Amino acid sequence: MINANDPSLKSWVEVPEKSDFPIQNLPFGIFKTEYLTPGAGVAIGNYIVDLTYLHENGFFDGLGLSSGVFNQQYLNDFIGLGKEVTGAVRNRIAELLEENNAELRDNKPARELALIDKSEAEMLMPIKVQNYTDFYSSVEHATNVGTMFRDPDNALLPNWKHIPVGYHGRASSIVPSGVNIHRPKGQTKAPDAELPSFGPSKRLDFELETAFITCKENGLGNAVSTEQAEEYIFGFVLFNDWSARDIQVWEYVPLGPFLAKNFASSISPWIVTMDALEPFRVPTPKQEPAVLPYLEYKGDKNFNINLEVYLQPEGGEENLICKSNFKYMYWNVNQQLAHHTVNGCNIQVGDMYASGTISGPTEDSYGSMLELAWKGTKPIKLSDGSERKFIEDGDTVIMRGHAEKDGVRIGFGEVASKVLPAK
Amino acid sequence: MINANDPSLKSWVEVPEKSDFPIQNLPFGIFKTEYLTPGAGVAIGNYIVDLTYLHENGFFDGLGLSSGVFNQQYLNDFIGLGKEVTGAVRNRIAELLEENNAELRDNKPARELALIDKSEAEMLMPIKVQNYTDFYSSVEHATNVGTMFRDPDNALLPNWKHIPVGYHGRASSIVPSGVNIHRPKGQTKAPDAELPSFGPSKRLDFELETAFITCKENGLGNAVSTEQAEEYIFGFVLFNDWSARDIQVWEYVPLGPFLAKNFASSISPWIVTMDALEPFRVPTPKQEPAVLPYLEYKGDKNFNINLEVYLQPEGGEENLICKSNFKYMYWNVNQQLAHHTVNGCNIQVGDMYASGTISGPTEDSYGSMLELAWKGTKPIKLSDGSERKFIEDGDTVIMRGHAEKDGVRIGFGEVASKVLPAK
Repeated sequence: MINANDPSLKSWVEVPEKSDFPIQNLPFGIFKTEYLTPGAGVAIGNYIVDLTYLHENGFFDGLGLSSGVFNQQYLNDFIGLGKEVTGAVRNRIAELLEENNAELRDNKPARELALIDKSEAEMLMPIKVQNYTDFYSSVEHATNVGTMFRDPDNALLPNWKHIPVGYHGRASSIVPSGVNIHRPKGQTKAPDAELPSFGPSKRLDFELETAFITCKENGLGNAVSTEQAEEYIFGFVLFNDWSARDIQVWEYVPLGPFLAKNFASSISPWIVTMDALEPFRVPTPKQEPAVLPYLEYKGDKNFNINLEVYLQPEGGEENLICKSNFKYMYWNVNQQLAHHTVNGCNIQVGDMYASGTISGPTEDSYGSMLELAWKGTKPIKLSDGSERKFIEDGDTVIMRGHAEKDGVRIGFGEVASKVLPAK
Repeated sequence: MINANDPSLKSWVEVPEKSDFPIQNLPFGIFKTEYLTPGAGVAIGNYIVDLTYLHENGFFDGLGLSSGVFNQQYLNDFIGLGKEVTGAVRNRIAELLEENNAELRDNKPARELALIDKSEAEMLMPIKVQNYTDFYSSVEHATNVGTMFRDPDNALLPNWKHIPVGYHGRASSIVPSGVNIHRPKGQTKAPDAELPSFGPSKRLDFELETAFITCKENGLGNAVSTEQAEEYIFGFVLFNDWSARDIQVWEYVPLGPFLAKNFASSISPWIVTMDALEPFRVPTPKQEPAVLPYLEYKGDKNFNINLEVYLQPEGGEENLICKSNFKYMYWNVNQQLAHHTVNGCNIQVGDMYASGTISGPTEDSYGSMLELAWKGTKPIKLSDGSERKFIEDGDTVIMRGHAEKDGVRIGFGEVASKVLPAK
C-alpha cells in the first residue's frame, strides 16, 4: 500500500494551489448534505470523500472495518479502532485518489457519488467530546499574562516550568466552525466598584489554540508515558477558546476559569491526523530547569504549523491580526498527556486537549486580544479605520493554520465564528 | 395513580427498619447479576426491582415508554424523558409495590423474576456522566479553608458571597461505590524545598459532597432561571471528591485543581429522585449581602439530609468521623444551575453537579480530613488506637446519607471505597 505522506503523490482529484487539503493531508470530519445524513468524510481539494459510500461499495474491503463505522454522527467509533487501522484507512484513501489508480477515477457513477462538492455540505462536530482539558503551555502567553496582571520581573508562577499546567473545561459547549456565538452575560466587578454587577461581557476575547483528540483508553489508574503518548493521539484541530476577560478576573480565584470560558469554544471541523503532520516535526524549545523524569522525552515533539487569526468586522474585510506558530509551545503534547495521566487519570476516546493560547515572541504573534492590544492600552487598528481592544458584536474571528514543506501544504481549513449580541 | 411520597404507603416487599429504601424512596440505578446484563432497577428494602422485566411484561403499559429504555448500560435515555414521565414511572412502581396491590404480589412467577436480592447484584455507574462540575457552596468549608491557608480575618474571598463558585472537573474518572482507588502519584513541592519532587501523594483526603444529575437540555445560549432549575434536576447521589492536598497546593494557582482531583471521584450508585426529597425541603441559610437578581429565588430550596462519613482501617471497624447535613449549603441547587447557565452554557442529560465539601458549623461536622484534623495539627483518633491526619493505604472511606420525617426515611445507601497503595 502507498504511504499518504509521500510528497510526490498527486491525485486525480483537482487540488487548487494553496489548498489546505492535498492528497498528503486527508483529514477526517463529519458532514451532511441535503440528501445525506451525517457521516464520515475526508477532505481533498474542494471535495469531500464520502467514506460511508466507499465502504458500502467495497472500497475498504480487507481492512476489517465494521459495516456502520462511517455512517455515524461522530468519528468516535472510527478513531477508537486505533491508529494502525485508521492509518491504513488513510493510506487506502490516498491509494484510491492517487492519479494513476483507476479504481474510482474511471468508475464515473461511483466517483460522482463518492465525491461531494464542499459547497453542498455542512460540516458538523467531528467527535462527541467526552472530556475537555485546556492546557496553558505557551511560555510567551503565560509570561505576557503574568506581566500584565502580576509582576513583570516574576511573570511566570513558580510551578509553570515544572508542570504543564492545565485545567478541565466544558465539553458540552464546544461547537464547530460556523456556529455563531452570543456574547455571554455574567457577573463582573470593576476594581473600584463596591459590589459586582450583571450584564453582557465588555471584554470578549478569542484565544488562538490547537487541540488534540485521543483515540485510545489507558484505563483508570494507569499512567501513559511520554513515549506511549502518540499511540493515544489521533489528530489535531484549531481551537478558539472564547474568553470573557471581565467575567474571568472576578470569578477565577481560587478554582480557575468557569463561566468566562464555558459559554462556547469553537473548533475547525477537519481533524488533521498526527500521521499527516509527521513531516513537520521540530524540536520543543529547550526546557530549563530540567523537568522531572516522568516529563522527559526523546525526539522532535513540536510541529511547525503556521497559525493565523483574522478579524472581520460586520460587512468588512478580513484583517490579519496575529501570526503565530505551534512550534513555540514550551510543553509538547507528549508531556501534556504524560502529566495528565501520571496520577492514573483515565483518557477516553474522543477527549479533546487544547494547547492554551499559542503566542509567539513578537508582538504580532500574540494569540489573544488581551495580549495584542495589551490589556486595552494599545488598540488594534483595522483596515476600515476602526479600532479594537476586544471583540465587538458583529465581528467574525477566523483562525487558519497550515504546515508547509517540500511543496506539500498540510492545512487545517479554518474555524470562523461571528459574535452576536447578548441574548 | 398513587403518589409514591405518601407517608402512609406500605409495601408487600419487606422493608427492614432503618432501611434507606422504603416505598417512598424508589431510587433508580443500574445493576447487573450473574444472569442479567446491565439494566435499570429501583431499590426497595433489600431488593432491586428489575425494570426491564416489568416493562417487557407489560407492567408499564400506557406510560409511553420505548421498548428498550430500561435495558441499557446507563439511565441517560430514561431520565432524558423528563420528570413528568419519570415521575409517573416512579408512582407506578409505588402502585405495584403497595401492600394492597395484587398485580405483582400475587403473581409468584413474575414477582420472583422482578425482585432481585441485592446481594446477588453488582451496582454500576447509573449514568454516563456527560459533564462534571464541582461547586464550592458550603460557607463553613470555604471559611475553614480560607482560615487555614489565608487569613482568618478575611477567610472568604471577595467573590464568594456573590457567586456560587464552581469549576469543571473530570467526568471520566467518576466511579461507583465499591471501586477501589489507587493512591495517586504526582508532583509536590514542600514549602522549604527548592524544587518539586515526584511520588505518591502524602496527603490524600476525601470530601463529603452530594451531586445532582440533570435530565433536560437548555440548548447553547439559553439561561435557566432559578425558577426553572428544578425541571432540569432528576436526582441526587452522594459524592466523594477524592483530593490529594499536596498535589493541589502546588498545581492549583492560577487555573484551579487538576491532577489533585481527577484521579477519581466516587458516587453512591442509587439516584434518589428530587421527587422523593420533596418532603424534606428547608430554607437556604440567609444570604447577606443580597444576591444579584438572577440568583434570587422563592421557596425552600435546601434539603434536610443527614450526612455521615466513616473511616474503616484495614481489618478494623468503622469509625464515625463526620456528621454533617446538606441543609448547611449556603448556595442552593437552583442558584447553582442558574449561575452555571447565565452565560448560555448548555446543560446536557447526564451531567453531574457536585456541591463542594459540605461542612457544618461544629468541628465534628467538617467534611474533609483537612478540616477535621485541621491541616494535620489535630489528628483524629480511631477506635483501634491509631491516628489519622489524612487517609492511609488500606483505609475505606464510607459516606452515608438519609432524610427522615413522619416515620419515613429516604436514604442514599452508601459510597464506600478503599484506598490501595500507589501503583
